[in-house]
Amino acid sequence: MYKIAVIPGDGIGKEVMEATLNILEALNIDFEFIFADAGDECKEKTGVALPDETIEIVKKADACLFGAAGETAADVIVRLRQEMDLFANLRPVKSYPGTKSLFDDLDFMIVRENTEGMYIGDEDYIKDESGNITGATAKRVITRDASERICEYAFKYAKENNRKKVTGIHKANVLKKTDGLFKEVFYEVAEKYKSEGIESEDFYVDATAMYLLTRPKSFDVIVTTNLFGDILSDEGAGLVGGLGLIPSANIGEERALFEPVHGSAPDIAGKDLANPTAMILSAIMMLEYLGEKEAANAIDKAILKVLSESKTVTGDLSGKSTTIEMSEAIKEKIEF
Amino acid sequence: MYKIAVIPGDGIGKEVMEATLNILEALNIDFEFIFADAGDECKEKTGVALPDETIEIVKKADACLFGAAGETAADVIVRLRQEMDLFANLRPVKSYPGTKSLFDDLDFMIVRENTEGMYIGDEDYIKDESGNITGATAKRVITRDASERICEYAFKYAKENNRKKVTGIHKANVLKKTDGLFKEVFYEVAEKYKSEGIESEDFYVDATAMYLLTRPKSFDVIVTTNLFGDILSDEGAGLVGGLGLIPSANIGEERALFEPVHGSAPDIAGKDLANPTAMILSAIMMLEYLGEKEAANAIDKAILKVLSESKTVTGDLSGKSTTIEMSEAIKEKIEF
Ligand SMILES: CC(C)[C@H](C(=O)O)[C@@H](O)C(=O)O
Ligand SMILES: CC(C)[C@H](C(=O)O)[C@@H](O)C(=O)O
Repeated sequence: MYKIAVIPGDGIGKEVMEATLNILEALNIDFEFIFADAGDECKEKTGVALPDETIEIVKKADACLFGAAGETAADVIVRLRQEMDLFANLRPVKSYPGTKSLFDDLDFMIVRENTEGMYIGDEDYIKDESGNITGATAKRVITRDASERICEYAFKYAKENNRKKVTGIHKANVLKKTDGLFKEVFYEVAEKYKSEGIESEDFYVDATAMYLLTRPKSFDVIVTTNLFGDILSDEGAGLVGGLGLIPSANIGEERALFEPVHGSAPDIAGKDLANPTAMILSAIMMLEYLGEKEAANAIDKAILKVLSESKTVTGDLSGKSTTIEMSEAIKEKIEF
Repeated sequence: MYKIAVIPGDGIGKEVMEATLNILEALNIDFEFIFADAGDECKEKTGVALPDETIEIVKKADACLFGAAGETAADVIVRLRQEMDLFANLRPVKSYPGTKSLFDDLDFMIVRENTEGMYIGDEDYIKDESGNITGATAKRVITRDASERICEYAFKYAKENNRKKVTGIHKANVLKKTDGLFKEVFYEVAEKYKSEGIESEDFYVDATAMYLLTRPKSFDVIVTTNLFGDILSDEGAGLVGGLGLIPSANIGEERALFEPVHGSAPDIAGKDLANPTAMILSAIMMLEYLGEKEAANAIDKAILKVLSESKTVTGDLSGKSTTIEMSEAIKEKIEF
């Protein structure tokens, strides 16, 4: 039996979560879903966006499924990542048939450091003598430990998933100390995996933003710091046709949280229009994490069929189906 | 008579500069070109990447043309931008016929803040008790003054160039103080231009990295902080077929420097293979800055013809011509 903490959150988070649980319940796997609150609505009701109780539920669960949060997203998700030390954020960029992917046959993995960098929340105002705010500063922290841990994760991931190359992304020409350290550590770890046949290379983040468009197929596994991973993974989403298709896994030593890369999408919320695929793919990543490979593969194949047919898909994929209709279509195609 | 400081720099910088001067000399405009050293080779020869003498030459000139620098690029170009307070970095994203642009008819301008943000070079190592480096920190500074100046520049640019909308890009959900301030100032400035018919909107930098691919035509003028501008403009380059076509202008109150967005490209340097277009387009931006609109238009039209014909173009555009051949072809087509 798996205890799964479920945080639907705000907006389309609730809809795509319902669609996803609907599919998970159809599997022959014993799940206990424990619902927990977080996000804008939760803040309105309880005064806090992320109640301690929610953190407790997530900490006690085997894994967590997270939908989306609205305005409070940063307070909810960044804190959950840090509280539970979910240091590796995995964001696959994969092109599916029947989508608006700019390229066919894309399949690479972005491994984003998830605990430090620009996300430590260490900011200060600069004030003049009369107390007026004239500016602000933010601190970026890159540690050897966190860099080692994330690079190690990326190379191990490459090895275990038959990937051939890991690309380290940084801006060490300008951020000489912080990203200089990240780059140094990247190559220290790379050295250990050389004999295992894993290649390595490094690029500047700006050049990478271009290469993702001019030679996306050259990438296999990308490893980078927190904010660069945030930006490049959304660019990756654009590459393969939008956020409706990009899942993510936040992995720690002992805990893990799975969420679509998209947000709460207030413009389409409550209308049953949202594409549930990113959330369902996130659940697939959870199944893989839990060791339920067969179930994961079965749902993946079903998604592939529904996308290929392009019949029962949502508006972002030029279809006319609702969230629930699309997830029902996927459910029907599962052979497990 | 215009005094133009010319810094060819390293690698293909020299080749594309030669090709560009070749065109400028053919115009009926009185230029005095004053050559100055900077970059890797300069560092090897003189011990410094950016000699004081070069800074002096640039400061005394009406404008500066810069080719590219190699490993020392950050020390050269970032310092030049800061020394001369070239606060606005203009990077047009425009699709030309005959190129590998992912979309037709793209034409937007990225206005990048060029003096602060992550580029202030304020980094420190974190050390343990034995003096080992365990991490590093970098400071990001956003001031009200610099934010106001760059937003003002972007809206004024929009107004003067018949643009309809300015989009402010930030990450204010995570960088609440620094980017919160940038966003606040952006809307203060936007308010002033409302009555002039210039619209405004703002997005997160990650969402923008996706929108550039899913709805690039919705952009008109983008204004953002230093590093986000760096990343997004390279993504823009990827959108329209690569760095060989992206010029830039670094503009201050009294001085200006024009450079291609590409680097010194050591892999193809010295082989007469580099696409000179980005450097020539940078020279066009210089001509516009100097008030030489007619000459600027004439060269622009010539480039358009050469690109449309796709006959005398370099390898990155699937042609077989050399740098000099392509620039000669452009020169021949100039009607001025
Ligand atoms: C909501 C926001 C804080 C978050 C981030 O920046 O990490 C989101 O963009 C993401 O990528 O998961
Ligand atoms: C060379 C480097 C320091 C520079 C930058 O980061 O600004 C370059 O990437 C650019 O965009 O002009």
